[in-house]
Amino acid sequence: MAKGKALKQDETGSLISADKVRGTAVHTPAGEKVGTIENVMIDKTSGHVEYAVLAFGGLLGMGKARRALPWDVLNYDTAQGAYVVNIDPKMLQDAPDYAEDEDISVWSDPEWRRRVDDYYEM
Amino acid sequence: MAKGKALKQDETGSLISADKVRGTAVHTPAGEKVGTIENVMIDKTSGHVEYAVLAFGGLLGMGKARRALPWDVLNYDTAQGAYVVNIDPKMLQDAPDYAEDEDISVWSDPEWRRRVDDYYEM
Repeated sequence: MAKGKALKQDETGSLISADKVRGTAVHTPAGEKVGTIENVMIDKTSGHVEYAVLAFGGLLGMGKARRALPWDVLNYDTAQGAYVVNIDPKMLQDAPDYAEDEDISVWSDPEWRRRVDDYYEM
Repeated sequence: MAKGKALKQDETGSLISADKVRGTAVHTPAGEKVGTIENVMIDKTSGHVEYAVLAFGGLLGMGKARRALPWDVLNYDTAQGAYVVNIDPKMLQDAPDYAEDEDISVWSDPEWRRRVDDYYEM
């Protein structure tokens, strides 16, 4: 395995660990930071990552806003070391949101998921 | 949304968060605990979860053994609250392994991934 630069174990050419995705910055194509990935939502049956949870704003973890982003709108840019979304930050702000303390999960509501998908025209 | 029991936000009917997968127990079909899921490896391009990292043994996090399990061998059993793998624990022990401190990632080695997939006949 003496083939050049050693890769870190949590990020390779084609695979990335969920741990590594978490905390990764999300940028506009121009390189402006929009927020960070807080979590990813996996379809239990298909094993496909359906959404990333984008968190932005807030101070010391308080008052953070959260948006569900369909995974397919994220593109990893190795040069920026960040995911790039080609979506106006204002549009992200206006997207369907949810609070951490909502006791009924938005994720279990097909209607809510449809709203998110429609919003991003997925 | 007044439809019975509130689901926790990190686990719904069809979606589960990566955070929730992490730390979930892995059982034999008979309910014997084999280990816990430590991480999941996501294909960056397809967004598909390719492997779960199964950790077992060790004391206080020291000397843990790790095995890459193709995602498709895991089945979530709601009754057990655990993933069930229908594989002899001895076979899991004998599977291709890797240590946390390996500095060249096994994940970036296509030959190693092929060994894992072949081992489980994926």
